[in-house]
This record gives sequence, C-alpha cells and structure tokens, in this order.
Amino acid sequence: MSARTDSTITKEQMLTCPGVMPAPRNQWYVAALSSEVSRKVMTRQILDDHVVFFRTEDGTAVALADRCPHRGVPLSMGTVQGNGIRCAYHGFEFGKAGICTHIPSQTTIVDQLAVRSYPLFEVGSYIWIWMGLPAERDDSLLPDMYALGLTRPGYKVTPLFVMEIGCNFQMLHENLLDTSHITFLHPGMIDGGNMAKASFNTSYKNGRVTISRDVTETPTAMMARTFHLKHADNRPVKRTLVTDAIPPHLSVITNIFTYPDEPDAPEHILINPQGVTPSGKNRCFNFMVVSSSYQDEQPPDAIPHIQKLVEQDKVVLEAVQRRFDEEGWDLPEISVRADAAALNFRKKMAALVEEERRRLAPKALQSA
Amino acid sequence: MSARTDSTITKEQMLTCPGVMPAPRNQWYVAALSSEVSRKVMTRQILDDHVVFFRTEDGTAVALADRCPHRGVPLSMGTVQGNGIRCAYHGFEFGKAGICTHIPSQTTIVDQLAVRSYPLFEVGSYIWIWMGLPAERDDSLLPDMYALGLTRPGYKVTPLFVMEIGCNFQMLHENLLDTSHITFLHPGMIDGGNMAKASFNTSYKNGRVTISRDVTETPTAMMARTFHLKHADNRPVKRTLVTDAIPPHLSVITNIFTYPDEPDAPEHILINPQGVTPSGKNRCFNFMVVSSSYQDEQPPDAIPHIQKLVEQDKVVLEAVQRRFDEEGWDLPEISVRADAAALNFRKKMAALVEEERRRLAPKALQSA
Amino acid sequence: MSARTDSTITKEQMLTCPGVMPAPRNQWYVAALSSEVSRKVMTRQILDDHVVFFRTEDGTAVALADRCPHRGVPLSMGTVQGNGIRCAYHGFEFGKAGICTHIPSQTTIVDQLAVRSYPLFEVGSYIWIWMGLPAERDDSLLPDMYALGLTRPGYKVTPLFVMEIGCNFQMLHENLLDTSHITFLHPGMIDGGNMAKASFNTSYKNGRVTISRDVTETPTAMMARTFHLKHADNRPVKRTLVTDAIPPHLSVITNIFTYPDEPDAPEHILINPQGVTPSGKNRCFNFMVVSSSYQDEQPPDAIPHIQKLVEQDKVVLEAVQRRFDEEGWDLPEISVRADAAALNFRKKMAALVEEERRRLAPKALQSA
Repeated sequence: MSARTDSTITKEQMLTCPGVMPAPRNQWYVAALSSEVSRKVMTRQILDDHVVFFRTEDGTAVALADRCPHRGVPLSMGTVQGNGIRCAYHGFEFGKAGICTHIPSQTTIVDQLAVRSYPLFEVGSYIWIWMGLPAERDDSLLPDMYALGLTRPGYKVTPLFVMEIGCNFQMLHENLLDTSHITFLHPGMIDGGNMAKASFNTSYKNGRVTISRDVTETPTAMMARTFHLKHADNRPVKRTLVTDAIPPHLSVITNIFTYPDEPDAPEHILINPQGVTPSGKNRCFNFMVVSSSYQDEQPPDAIPHIQKLVEQDKVVLEAVQRRFDEEGWDLPEISVRADAAALNFRKKMAALVEEERRRLAPKALQSA
Repeated sequence: MSARTDSTITKEQMLTCPGVMPAPRNQWYVAALSSEVSRKVMTRQILDDHVVFFRTEDGTAVALADRCPHRGVPLSMGTVQGNGIRCAYHGFEFGKAGICTHIPSQTTIVDQLAVRSYPLFEVGSYIWIWMGLPAERDDSLLPDMYALGLTRPGYKVTPLFVMEIGCNFQMLHENLLDTSHITFLHPGMIDGGNMAKASFNTSYKNGRVTISRDVTETPTAMMARTFHLKHADNRPVKRTLVTDAIPPHLSVITNIFTYPDEPDAPEHILINPQGVTPSGKNRCFNFMVVSSSYQDEQPPDAIPHIQKLVEQDKVVLEAVQRRFDEEGWDLPEISVRADAAALNFRKKMAALVEEERRRLAPKALQSA
Repeated sequence: MSARTDSTITKEQMLTCPGVMPAPRNQWYVAALSSEVSRKVMTRQILDDHVVFFRTEDGTAVALADRCPHRGVPLSMGTVQGNGIRCAYHGFEFGKAGICTHIPSQTTIVDQLAVRSYPLFEVGSYIWIWMGLPAERDDSLLPDMYALGLTRPGYKVTPLFVMEIGCNFQMLHENLLDTSHITFLHPGMIDGGNMAKASFNTSYKNGRVTISRDVTETPTAMMARTFHLKHADNRPVKRTLVTDAIPPHLSVITNIFTYPDEPDAPEHILINPQGVTPSGKNRCFNFMVVSSSYQDEQPPDAIPHIQKLVEQDKVVLEAVQRRFDEEGWDLPEISVRADAAALNFRKKMAALVEEERRRLAPKALQSA
C-alpha cells in the first residue's frame, strides 16, 4: 500500500474521486467577501492562479495576476498607487486593466509588460471572479442572486467568514450536501439528534442536486441560538432543511422554521449560500454568508459557533484528503443509500469538466 | 551528488543498504506496549499500514485497519462503542472482526462495509501483531517468550517506553547489534569506558546473530544505577553482555553481572527484549521492556536515563538516514572488522525478504 | 499552470533562467568568514556538498567532506581532536588531509577510510574554498585581493555577517548588479531617492560586468550613518557607485564619496566585496565584508542596518524563487533597458558553466 502520485491516475479516474476532481475554469467562483478587498492589497490562490485584489479610488474591486511580468515578484508585496498597483522591487506600476503605466528607469513602456486582469462581479457581500478566458466571459453563468437571498428585500445579509480547508473542493461540496453526518460530527450543535435518520426527498433538476427534509424537532439550546429561533426552550419547531448544490461553485442551505404552537408567527427563514472555491492543490475555500428573513442582530456567539462547526468538518475532510493522497486515489469508497445525492452531484461536476474539455480542447485555457 | 529517489535503485540494491531495507510482511512484530491499548482508540503506522487499536469490554486488544471503508475517514478519529468502534463522520460502527454492525441511515448493511482485522498476541507487556495475510498466520513465528524473559518465574517485567525513530528499521537493528559505539556515543552511561575495545565472540546460528563479550569493569555511578547494581562504589563487577538479533523483529540484550568479591551473591540478570518494528517510510519504533532477575523497583532515574540513551542513538540514526536520502543510496559504507555481525545480520534480513518474495510472488500481499 | 520539476527543463534552458543556474565547480568561492572557523566544528553546504570546517592546533583552517565514510554519520556531529576530527558514533578519527588515523576497535586502517579534503585559502577575513577536483586546483582563479580592498594598506577591513538566502546564487548576483531597485525596495536607506533614475555607464570587459553611476545627492540621516559620511546634515555629497560583478563568485560594490564644499577632504571610499556562494538546491550565501579608507569604527547601528537591507532583498528573492519553482521555469521575464547589465552577466555565467562542461565532460566532477 504505497503512495501513488497524480501521474499514475488517468483523467477519467480523476473524475470519479472527490479528492482529485479538476475544476472547470470557464465559470464564476466566489473570490472574496466584499469586506476583504480594500485599498490594501490582498492575495489569494484561486484555481491554482495567484491573484492580487485591491480597490481603485472609486471603490471598484480589481483582480490581477499576482506576478510582476518583469522579474516575477508577487505584486501583492507592493502597494496600491492611485487606481493601480506598484511592484515592491523596481517600482513598476500597473493599472486596473493590468497594463504597465510607469517604469521608473525609462519613459517608453513595452507592450508585453502587462498582467492578466480577472473580471469581477460584486453583490451582496460576495465578490465573484471569472476564471476562464476573459473573451469567453459569460454573465449568464452567474447564479440567481435573488434565489441566494443576497438581493431579497426585507432580508438581512451578514457576512460570516472564509475558511480555507486542505481538501479538494469536491469533497467540501459532498460534505455540505450530506446532511446525515450532522448528528455525529456536530452532536447537539445544529440538530435535535435525529437528522441522520430523517427521511428526505432528492431532485436532480436543472443541473443541480436538491435534498430536502421536513422534521419536527426539539432544538438544543445551542441550535436555538445559532438559528436565532423564537423558542429557546423545549417547545418543538417544524423545520424544512433544503440543500441546493449548484456545480461548480455553490451549496445553498436553507432552513425554514415554523412554530406549531404559534401558527400566526411568520416563517423564520435563513439562507446560507456557501461559496465553494478551489484554491491550490488539495485546498479550497468555504465562503460563508447568511441571509435572514428577520432584521435582528445575530446573537454574539452564533458566528464563533458556526466557525467551530466548519472546523469540525475541516478536520475530517483534511484527514480524508491526506489519507487518499498517501494511500492512493484508487482506494474504493463503499457507498450507502444516503450517498446517492452526493454521488449524483459528483457526476454532474464531472460532466461540467468533461464538457469544458471537449469545448476548449483546441484553445489554450489560460491567457498570458 | 544529487538526491536520488527510491525508483532509481533496484530491489536487489535495496537489500544491501540499511536505509531502504524492505520489511517482510508475513511475520509478527511488536505493535504496542500493553499499557498503550485501552478503551480509548490509539493509532499507529506499522509496515506502512495505519492501524487503530482498542480493547473490547472484556479487555481483549483489537487491531483494525484505520480507515472507514465508507468515505475514508480514519476510524481513530472515532470512539469505542461496546466491543466495536464508531466512525466520527457518519456514525457507522464496526465490530472487533472489522465487520460493519450499524449504519444510522439504513437498516441493511452491505457486505463490503468491512475493514481488515489484524491478529494480535498479547503477553508480558507486549502486544504482537501479524502483518501478513490473516489466512497465512503462523504462530510458530512468534519468539520464545521464556527466552525473552517475559514469562520467566521470579522475574519482574517493567515496560519502559516506545521511541519512534526516523530511520529504516534495519538501521536500528544494526545499531543495537553494534556495541562498539557505546563508549563513544554514550560515554560513561552504560559502560566503564572499554567496551569499544573489548574482545567478542560472534555466532550465526538458527537464523540469528549473537555477540557476547565478557568484561570486568568498574561501573560509573550512572551505569550502576541504570543496571541497579549492588555495587554503586568503585568495586569492579564481572559483566557478560549478550546481544541476540532475531530477524525481523527483535534485538534481545542480556546483561549478567557477578561480583568477584561476593562470590555467593546471585547472578544479577537483566533481559531487554527490544521490539524493532517498521512504521512508515524511513521510520521505525523501538519498544523497550526490561525483565530483571530481582524484584526491587527500578531506581527512579533509570527510565529517563535509558530514554536519554536511546535519544542519542536516534539523533545519529536520523542524521544518517537524512544524508543517505539526500545524497543517494548507492554511496558506499566502508566497514571494519567490528561490523561483521551487523553485515551478517543484514544478509539474514535480506534473505528473509527474498524468501518471502519468492514464496508470495503470485499472491497479493495484502487483503482488502 | 502547474508545477514543473527540474527534469522537464533542458540543460540549455537552465542557463537562461536565474532560478536554476548551475554553478561551475572548478572555481574558488567564499566558504566562511575567518571568525566562523575555530576549534569547534562548523558545517555548511556549498555547491550541494556538505563540508565540515575546523582549525588545527596551529590555527590552519581545514575543510573536509562532512560524512564519515564508515556509516555515513556527519563528522560535524563529532569533535576536534588534536589536528583532526573524531566521529561521534564510533570514535574514528580523521586528519586534516582526510585520512583516517584511528579506529578504536582495531589497529589496522583500511585505505578507503578517507574523506575528501577541500583546498582553502584564507586572507582578509575571508576563507575561500576550491570546489573542483583537488588535482585541478588553480590559484590563478582567485580574485585580486588588493582590488577587493582586503589587502590594501591603510584600509580597515570589518567582517559584517553571512546571510543565507533561499534562491539560486545567480538571482543574488543579478540583484546586486541591479542598483535600480535601491530606491524602491530600500527607500531612504542607502540613497537619496534618485538612484533608480540616475544615468549609468556599463562595461563588459575581462569576463566581468561593471556598472558605474555618478550622482550628487543629499544623504538621508540613515544613509549618512551607514556610509559613515562626514556630512550627517543636509549638505550634498558627490557619489560614485561602482558595481563589479565577477562570475562566478563575487559582486564588488564600491562607494566613493567626495564633498563639494570641502574640496580638500580626502576621498571617502568603502569597498564591499560580497561573496556569492551556491549552497544546496535554491539556496545561496551572501558574505559581507567592508573595507574602508578610514580607520574609524563603524557606527554601532551600521551593521544591523545593512543586515536589515539584505533581509529586504532576501524576502523578495525568496518569493520569486518560490513562484518560479511553483509555476515553472519557462515563465518569461520581460526585461527593460536597466536590465542589460544583469542579462549580460547571466550570459557570462552561462558561458563559464558551458566551458566547464565541455572541458570536464569525460572526467568525473567529484573525487571520492
């Protein structure tokens, strides 16, 4: 049982294992929370590319390849100057389109002195990035922001945090879609103890996977605080939990609570559109924003509580990734019925990758 | 002088270099001290396999492959439940034979949901593990526990510690067999200063290598305490030091002290059957138990003293392993006469590996 | 944009990229400051070789291969004994020529028990090492020590420090030759703010590259202290800055200051012959000594200030090396006019490597 390297598995095998799933490039992904991008440079690796982010004087977010074309210094070691960025090493400056605008030691500027500029789209606490060829930018591939709860009147959007996890992004997707683990990995934290056994409906429409469960449960104290429920005592609530997995970039988790003993109380809705974004090899980001149908502030301990929850997932996901890395991608998984949704999602992701491969085969996937 | 990878040396070359010696699998190895295995899970890598250990309700030690067959999570992240173990991720449970006994989300259990179970044998502070195919288990390959001092009436067995060392197990074996280094690497700690020069007898019988030395020496204070000698002052003792190297798993070091000025005092015997067990790549374990012919407690500083001693070996062995890893396995060693025993042992180990290769060639070495 | 390994680039491509430049072996390099070598062992990796340094009883510096030929233990784990070194493991001793002189367990010594001895040359705070075959030692390849300021009457030589930098030595050479970065990477530290724009003369004579700039500038307070200028106030100084890059081992930086308002004051000269020495893969050493035309002590904060300066370079150079390592050696650099000198120096270094390859092709590059 010896370690095997990537090169020993074929492209076809990669599409069947969540630890080595490739990411389609001609797509939008969540790149950052709005609050992370400012007049100070910020760098992040997305789909293996190092990308530097900053805002221009009018607040527009900019994303450039994080590599000065002159001598290869990360531009993120430099500083924002006006609407552009200055390299720390020799002071070359680049504008928001990535074109060099200033060389201290000479007045003429060669055309090749330019870096790739990535299209961005900012709405409702999220900044989305287009990772494909700029010429192939397709805004119709952006998700429906209303459905995500990010542009819904009367809803309050609270950006929570970004978690970097040391596993392939497909593994995070499958973790989010698989609600049967909640009862065991997060005992008492976000369910009343019966989620693993609850019946569920699955649908596979419109290129996405949707699972929903209807349960009546008695919230634990922690669960009541996390979801900001009216009932912090022992009275049962009716809960509809819907997970909507949208390849390649989102897992939208919606919780709808109603109160059997207060039939006139409004539905209590939380939409949690989680961005799932590949980073470098075997790493991904989990972006976390919550949109709620009520205007109250989140209880002060809800955010650290959710962070702790994601950290529990992170520990398990990273352990699995390390083991597969060490013992080989061809080790089998034995699935059960509750895995059907995740396996179907895996096929949908693989199909997206395959479709892009066929379509882009004769072209370069990356611009200079 | 550049680094070379494993793939550049042949299987034949590996058998001549102590830094890359393969381990025969159809053998028993020490896996743990008895005190290490309890109702809490413990994990350890042995011959590259990740193995999880725990005890059932009646105290029986169990060893299973440390990988849930469902999604690859290490079972050692879970908890002991009754006579089995529960996976931390989805709550699947596995009994002591490795068969899945419970899936929270469904009532039927598929046959493939099972993990390898490793045969164990526990006696005298040691738990032995059979790393070969379970069907080929051969109890006649267990060592003679009486000879090891582990089942000898009137002897007191004291488990000392386990040391993980970053070198191939063959290098540790050769270190233990090579008593000429004691005087230099461990000055004043376990000899009177003349061991490197002492004459010795070597025998190569019964597939093992035995070296013995008879010396009369004046113990240092530390040496007297470590061996719990009657004489802590400057009076000489007669010492017989026997090292019995038994491939692939043991180095038994026996010290017999007698007192020239007290001819009627009983022989003072310490048997130290050191388990030498391969772990992951370039790592091994040194298991340390001492069996003494007297019933007194060890002096309180004896154990940390022996630990310090093994740490001195560890530093040197890891430095040599790192250098060979970096500079190439084909760098020569220049041997002297005192190395004859270690070189002979190396041939015996290589022969064991070769014999197993020939015998098992057509079969798989590992079960599912 | 995936990581590529060394093996995917040809030897010819390596000569065009500063991150993977090979080092010619039949050359002298600075190995240590005189103060670093004593009666205690010191180890350092030079051109991939691990070398152990010590002094004999009469103070002569000795350099031996840092690997006991017996079992591969680094000799630097041992101790100096008389004029030789004793291995920590079995007490074997080796004299300054690398020949084994003592084996504790036997009286005869086999001829093969010897380690390589490296020729050294010590003058003016520097110890130089010959890395080629000892038989090909060529003292005419040593630099002119007078020109370096190391043997100049009336000059004061102050050894400063050694900095290990995680980049190929060629990248450090190009950094030292490229004075247009001073204004940006070291703002206010060693120039008055206009060096990047200053005009310069370049010459490519005698196998070396020389750049000189004449500027009149108003020193910053820090610059005045670092160069120990007469003028610590706002009066301008005339400065000639000459960088003399000598492949493969030196970058000599000379600063000559004169004072327009004190025409009779003597020239204020600092010569800074920086040793640039390859270490292990993607690592090099920057040796720093300063020779000054005046006898005053350096101001106490000058040395930490210069150290901080080199650390700023180190951060940038290591970032570039890491990115090239990750993203591939074949990523282009886009050069500007100010890079002409560095690019010319790169060709000179490549020519040295090529010339040695052709000349030594049929011989082994390393002795046993």
